[in-house]
Amino acid sequence: MNPKSIISKTTYLLSAICLSLSCTTSAKKYEIEHLEPAFWWVDMQQKELQLLVHGENISELSPRINSDQIILKKVNKVDNPNYLFLDIIVREGTSPHTINIEFLEGDKIATNYQYQLKAKNKNHAADVSYSSKDVIYLITPDRFANGDKSNDKVPSLTEGLDRQHPGGRHGGDIQGIIDRLAYIEDMGYTQLWLNPVIENNQPNYSYHGYSATDFYNVDARYGDNALYKKLSDEAQKRGIGLIIDIVLNHGGSGHWWHNDLPMADWYNNQGKAYLGTNHKREALHDPYAADIDAQTFSDGWFVPTMPDLNQKNPFMAKYLIQNTLWWIEFANLSGIRVDTYSYPDKAFLSEWTKRVTQEYPNINIVGEEWTTNPAIVSYWQKGKQTPDGYQSYLPSVMDFPIQDGLVKSLKNKENWNTGLNELYRVLANDFLYPAPDNLVIFPDNHDMSRIFTQLDEDYELFKIAMTFMMTTRGIPQIFYGTEILMSNPGTDDHGVIRTDFPGGWPTDSINGFTGKGLTNRQKSAQQFMKKLLNWRKNTPTIHQGKLMHYAPENGVYVYFRYDEYSKYMVVINKNTEATEIDMSRFSQMLGKAKSLNPVLNNRPITIEQTMIMPAKTATIYQVH
Amino acid sequence: MNPKSIISKTTYLLSAICLSLSCTTSAKKYEIEHLEPAFWWVDMQQKELQLLVHGENISELSPRINSDQIILKKVNKVDNPNYLFLDIIVREGTSPHTINIEFLEGDKIATNYQYQLKAKNKNHAADVSYSSKDVIYLITPDRFANGDKSNDKVPSLTEGLDRQHPGGRHGGDIQGIIDRLAYIEDMGYTQLWLNPVIENNQPNYSYHGYSATDFYNVDARYGDNALYKKLSDEAQKRGIGLIIDIVLNHGGSGHWWHNDLPMADWYNNQGKAYLGTNHKREALHDPYAADIDAQTFSDGWFVPTMPDLNQKNPFMAKYLIQNTLWWIEFANLSGIRVDTYSYPDKAFLSEWTKRVTQEYPNINIVGEEWTTNPAIVSYWQKGKQTPDGYQSYLPSVMDFPIQDGLVKSLKNKENWNTGLNELYRVLANDFLYPAPDNLVIFPDNHDMSRIFTQLDEDYELFKIAMTFMMTTRGIPQIFYGTEILMSNPGTDDHGVIRTDFPGGWPTDSINGFTGKGLTNRQKSAQQFMKKLLNWRKNTPTIHQGKLMHYAPENGVYVYFRYDEYSKYMVVINKNTEATEIDMSRFSQMLGKAKSLNPVLNNRPITIEQTMIMPAKTATIYQVH
Repeated sequence: MNPKSIISKTTYLLSAICLSLSCTTSAKKYEIEHLEPAFWWVDMQQKELQLLVHGENISELSPRINSDQIILKKVNKVDNPNYLFLDIIVREGTSPHTINIEFLEGDKIATNYQYQLKAKNKNHAADVSYSSKDVIYLITPDRFANGDKSNDKVPSLTEGLDRQHPGGRHGGDIQGIIDRLAYIEDMGYTQLWLNPVIENNQPNYSYHGYSATDFYNVDARYGDNALYKKLSDEAQKRGIGLIIDIVLNHGGSGHWWHNDLPMADWYNNQGKAYLGTNHKREALHDPYAADIDAQTFSDGWFVPTMPDLNQKNPFMAKYLIQNTLWWIEFANLSGIRVDTYSYPDKAFLSEWTKRVTQEYPNINIVGEEWTTNPAIVSYWQKGKQTPDGYQSYLPSVMDFPIQDGLVKSLKNKENWNTGLNELYRVLANDFLYPAPDNLVIFPDNHDMSRIFTQLDEDYELFKIAMTFMMTTRGIPQIFYGTEILMSNPGTDDHGVIRTDFPGGWPTDSINGFTGKGLTNRQKSAQQFMKKLLNWRKNTPTIHQGKLMHYAPENGVYVYFRYDEYSKYMVVINKNTEATEIDMSRFSQMLGKAKSLNPVLNNRPITIEQTMIMPAKTATIYQVH
Repeated sequence: MNPKSIISKTTYLLSAICLSLSCTTSAKKYEIEHLEPAFWWVDMQQKELQLLVHGENISELSPRINSDQIILKKVNKVDNPNYLFLDIIVREGTSPHTINIEFLEGDKIATNYQYQLKAKNKNHAADVSYSSKDVIYLITPDRFANGDKSNDKVPSLTEGLDRQHPGGRHGGDIQGIIDRLAYIEDMGYTQLWLNPVIENNQPNYSYHGYSATDFYNVDARYGDNALYKKLSDEAQKRGIGLIIDIVLNHGGSGHWWHNDLPMADWYNNQGKAYLGTNHKREALHDPYAADIDAQTFSDGWFVPTMPDLNQKNPFMAKYLIQNTLWWIEFANLSGIRVDTYSYPDKAFLSEWTKRVTQEYPNINIVGEEWTTNPAIVSYWQKGKQTPDGYQSYLPSVMDFPIQDGLVKSLKNKENWNTGLNELYRVLANDFLYPAPDNLVIFPDNHDMSRIFTQLDEDYELFKIAMTFMMTTRGIPQIFYGTEILMSNPGTDDHGVIRTDFPGGWPTDSINGFTGKGLTNRQKSAQQFMKKLLNWRKNTPTIHQGKLMHYAPENGVYVYFRYDEYSKYMVVINKNTEATEIDMSRFSQMLGKAKSLNPVLNNRPITIEQTMIMPAKTATIYQVH
């Protein structure tokens, strides 16, 4: 199901056909090197489709489609004669079938392409998508498990295996993830977000996946498109959804089109000296921003090896929108995470989110807007009344403010304004969000120190952090290996943060999947997480219930999750000594309740006027 | 013009009248101890007036007004028989005159009150009010200048003089300020905000003025109401407006009504044990707030000696609204500063701001909301689209976020995200405010360490801070003595922060007003401030012009103020070495400009492609 292989086969077949029709010269002269998307579906909401066709001097040919159902509306020639962009209408009621796109040189068929229109998925995973019912497991595919040694080195791709080098390729792959789905399910995770698996054929530091060199093909070192689809299917059987990591802002400098761009403005700042983004996302909102600051933010490149895609170019915009729809439909994806969300052209982001959610109305999409300023984060969420009238259709945003607040709350000393108050204050800012329940919350991710390291390897604080994550509002996301206390002591090297999961490689002496060689504390953490995750998985009140919290007092932070069926009380006591709390303060929530039942063990306790809360713990009680 | 003295005189006259009418028993039996407001005006927008009448068993009497113009609409008796609240209508077209309010015992006049209805000010100072055209000078009256030694100790008021004690009364007064108006004008300040001057007859720590014991009378240690009015008039002659500091949230425990409250709910938490506010302003906005947290914020007391006024009580609400209007009209005030703005009842704040701005449509009112969270600060500004639909009519808010950002920007090391970037980021948040130009900005105030101390007594940074304050958007406010580098080294004791201005006391060996005994650096600072303030005073482009700023780069922050007539470029270079900057980056603002003219000296320089900016300075250039 790899479109690249389809194209090669087509070319091969064409040559054969041409030979039999004595059209040898044409076959040699014109070759379709790329045609994207390689296939499509009928019954899509959006009837228009634009095909990018790439091949030497391909624009000298005239494409033709003989069909009443599939209309070739317009043939767009652009600056570069090696490209054609075909505007196609797939009419309502078209049945799945394959059409023949002919490319004529004069009145002779110089080449053709068998274009498949498939049946769209029924009961698509995106109809359910991910939500606060889920916990997302974030995996860096190169670093989780090596399930297929045969793809560790692929001759056609530059960078080989170097497991000793933190920034090198370590050999993890999709098969490795498929092989560990039972572990993931057992732990209680219900969604998988993989860092991008599409081809990153860069000379080095390519394992992270954010430098696409082919937007339609899985990197052969991870597997292929079919295996990616298999992962989705196998995960779905276990009730686990697959979330794709989409990069709209940039590609990689090793992309096949990089030295043969369709037009001058395919990239931002094309032809000029490299201009980096200033990372000043504020400039998009700032009433006093100089034009150059907003432009440099949006149009500057992320790094020199990541050319900045120009989404203001309508061909690029269509390309990216279709590419997203293609992956959702092809791999039956559950949802989307969007990298560097605010960096692409703002108007395009509005259009992209609108188009994707028109096609998949229930799909969840979370944008990464890395700032702790909730006024900026919330700007992007669907339904926000923005000062400038900007319309976004993005359902979710990554909650960086709460990540920051959580760590500060646990590390900073308790004071009237600091410590747990910092976490309380972040949540109080939720009035800024149109849908705070749909924010993705996380203790860390692949771009920052691991939470265990951020908490100075304090295991009690770690458990508090995890308990908070699993009981506050939002959709928790956990980075792979968090459950076995993976850490990056003394460095914030991304390659170390994304250390290999032990046991993912056959030669590993320690195995986090089986527990072999783990320290007692690691085993304890894994058991704790498993219990917590599975409890959350089966507790709809945590998924959908309301939140009420009480301003922290004396190092104790208390909140409730509740609905008409159940009520849970979470008590975070940061003090290193057991602490007495006055229960009457919580009367609005406790009402006439008689007892508290700790959900992770089974010793109900009677509610008294004052109660002693154990030191340095977070306890979840069901209120009875 | 002291209403208290008017009341005493009336009582005296009544006794005389009664004697002549042989009504000796009534005269002894009923006495009006307080009647507030003591007089009022005709032609007010609001025709309703409610008089608070206080006297032993006064509610046994029946008030009567014989007039077609002044209608006694309703007589309200409350819990405490020592009070009456009279609802009066002053009809449209009523001329200024005095009416006789009779209080009858049966059909006999037991006592009466000559109630004066005065002519309203024409050309009221509040018609112009304060705005970004102004710089406000904040004075702590006890600590600025002692102009009248005779009021240093007043027998009727508990706390006497103790100039040695930082928290004691030091003897500064209104006459002292009147005597220094020439200095204030000369420096270039155009508005005066005094910490409250109304009576604070508390046993100790009463000099700050925030514990009112009489809402209608100036503290005798500062002078009297007439002198306050004189200050306003004398200031106005010099083009200086007078801003009153209004406390709506609380009074002082030494208030005359404290032990004889009109009703049980006159104060919040009356009769209960003292309950302090939790200072958790977030609870008003927080979608997850427990009722008790929001209640404790609004209804908790500031400190035990400051009873929390219950603005939900409609008599208290009217009392506070009228009291504000009374002072504006009586003293021809320019505008208002409201203490602890968010602490009173939220609905009342909406009503209070509405009523005050209905009466004085152009009046500026700035609320103190002490948080660095602009999402919360901006909530209170008129025109804000609030998530809960709350309507505020407050024109201005104190800009605590920019105070914090300014200090951080100057003290923190330059990095992609810190240093000057912190100031830039705060301004970028202005999209949250409906009217950022009308925010009051300040380097410090009476409640925090002095700016020179906050900047570790770094004089270069001090000058940068002042230049920023005088050139960015907003209405600058400067705390008295800032211009002579007053500081509070090694302590944040409020009494030290509010140190006496040297030269304000006849025995002072150093005199900041004349320069005698000031260090060279102090003199230099004073000259610098004078030049800067007077330049700003005469530069309408700074008052009304737009702002454009450029993201800081390499320790240099550049911004422009501009309108159709003029353009100013401000360059803040935090580096300790002269720094080359690429001028082409500012082409949107510089256009074809040829030269830059530093406004504080007169050496125009030609604009080059790159220019060297002097080390650790802020320079204001006019662009030509």
